[in-house]
Amino acid sequence: MPYRLPSEVRVVEVGLRDGLQNEAAFVHTDDKLRLLDALLAAGLRDIEFTSFVHPRWVPALADADRLAARVQGYDPTLRLSALTPNMRGLERAIATGVREVAVFMSASETHNLRNINKGRDETWPVFEPIFARAAEAGLKVRAYLSTAWGCPYEGDVAPCEVLRMSQRLLEMGAYEISLGDTIGVGDPLQTRRLLEALLSALPADKLAMHMHDTRGAALANCMVGLEMGITTFDTSLAGLGGCPYAPGASGNLATEDLVYALERMGVRTGVDLDALLEAGCLAQRLLGRPLAGRVLATKDCKE
Amino acid sequence: MPYRLPSEVRVVEVGLRDGLQNEAAFVHTDDKLRLLDALLAAGLRDIEFTSFVHPRWVPALADADRLAARVQGYDPTLRLSALTPNMRGLERAIATGVREVAVFMSASETHNLRNINKGRDETWPVFEPIFARAAEAGLKVRAYLSTAWGCPYEGDVAPCEVLRMSQRLLEMGAYEISLGDTIGVGDPLQTRRLLEALLSALPADKLAMHMHDTRGAALANCMVGLEMGITTFDTSLAGLGGCPYAPGASGNLATEDLVYALERMGVRTGVDLDALLEAGCLAQRLLGRPLAGRVLATKDCKE
Repeated sequence: MPYRLPSEVRVVEVGLRDGLQNEAAFVHTDDKLRLLDALLAAGLRDIEFTSFVHPRWVPALADADRLAARVQGYDPTLRLSALTPNMRGLERAIATGVREVAVFMSASETHNLRNINKGRDETWPVFEPIFARAAEAGLKVRAYLSTAWGCPYEGDVAPCEVLRMSQRLLEMGAYEISLGDTIGVGDPLQTRRLLEALLSALPADKLAMHMHDTRGAALANCMVGLEMGITTFDTSLAGLGGCPYAPGASGNLATEDLVYALERMGVRTGVDLDALLEAGCLAQRLLGRPLAGRVLATKDCKE
Repeated sequence: MPYRLPSEVRVVEVGLRDGLQNEAAFVHTDDKLRLLDALLAAGLRDIEFTSFVHPRWVPALADADRLAARVQGYDPTLRLSALTPNMRGLERAIATGVREVAVFMSASETHNLRNINKGRDETWPVFEPIFARAAEAGLKVRAYLSTAWGCPYEGDVAPCEVLRMSQRLLEMGAYEISLGDTIGVGDPLQTRRLLEALLSALPADKLAMHMHDTRGAALANCMVGLEMGITTFDTSLAGLGGCPYAPGASGNLATEDLVYALERMGVRTGVDLDALLEAGCLAQRLLGRPLAGRVLATKDCKE
């Protein structure tokens, strides 16, 4: 039975953004930098570190400009990116020297409407000037396509819809589509079918998987993607991003859990697991509660 | 790409034994019966409900005889089994009317020595009269082969060793080998290689997978097995069996997490997920802490 695995993958750490945006507590800017430094010390090089969203909507990330300003002295070969939900956010990102941004929309109409207050077809005209302005400023743009496995309002989303929207986003100038299982409903068979549809028309290196581990299937789904040629995976330190009121609830797939499995399989991630677990311990201390990552739970995080 | 899945699988619930044996707290016999009833109400039909181990070693299961006596009135088509670590345990099981038992040994020499105080080759002569006595009493015998993915003392275990021991246990009269990733170290590539070795000589219906979710890869590993023809999986309600002092630490793969993924893929388990989650809530109430199952963490367990 053939079983081809890539020799290495790219892990995109999103805990500081997708994780912390779900936290009730505000993590101080200095502490966010400590986390960022710990992630870099572990070898991560792709880190989405904040979102230039209006502070009213996501108070936890209200320090995006300050944080962005402070990372400008970092190694320029690192990919330190930020989410930019609109033109105002993009201008803030440009003003603070961010070199890579991400936009997002949903694969399902209702989620897009509820999340960004526009239908999907109304979203394209909003994105056009954003992509144009980012290109003008020399920024790379990544596109998140949320609810690609399922929508909390509409249920399953048709793979052909995900393909159509992915193609459109790539045509607009996105260098990569990060396919999101936003509510963590996907299963491995569905993952295979979705990716079969997408890979019939798109090269694997234009796609990333961004799986939430809400129901424990994120790693299994990523393994299907890996086998099918996907080599970019978004994860969050310690599984940050679960509901803070549900102990054990996971947000994104925990970076440590992905790194553990991949490295053991001989797939290089560039990440040092021990150092990553130290970062996970720091995240637990800063948030004051046990986080969801499984590998992290095996570690004694005493200070 | 072909992707054959079975139409149904057999889920063996081991939470009352493998889960509770790791608990510091003693769950009262009446409460164990409530859990058992809740599991049965959810549709589970294969349940290992206790171990006839000496109470000194596992005080949490000191009520094995009482519990076994009380399940004797249950539907005889259910498979309510018990672990029997030695002849004395087997006699206790027979005396209380248990119809199916399980024996266990380790695939690695050091773990076997530390766990049952005998080398692997010294274990066969001990098993022989146990298998003979079970056959005489009309009991089915299942065999657990622990540390099949890795040993805490020796590291990785060679697939050929696992095969050799599985064959011997089947020859002795075990109807099935439950392959254990006892310390939850396995990865999907290793799972594939291990099962390739085993399935080169054994039919898939003689093998079960018993994966601990210590590092979050249990479901991914089971999915590899499913694809390769394995149709029996051991799991524990709510992921019971993690270290009680490490919040979020998982024991066995949580039954709900397996059932969720399988049912969504169209693979029948016979289990009603909602009813199973009710059982998970009951387990959390009885143990007084959040348990590790991911799907369970999405449920509001208010009484």
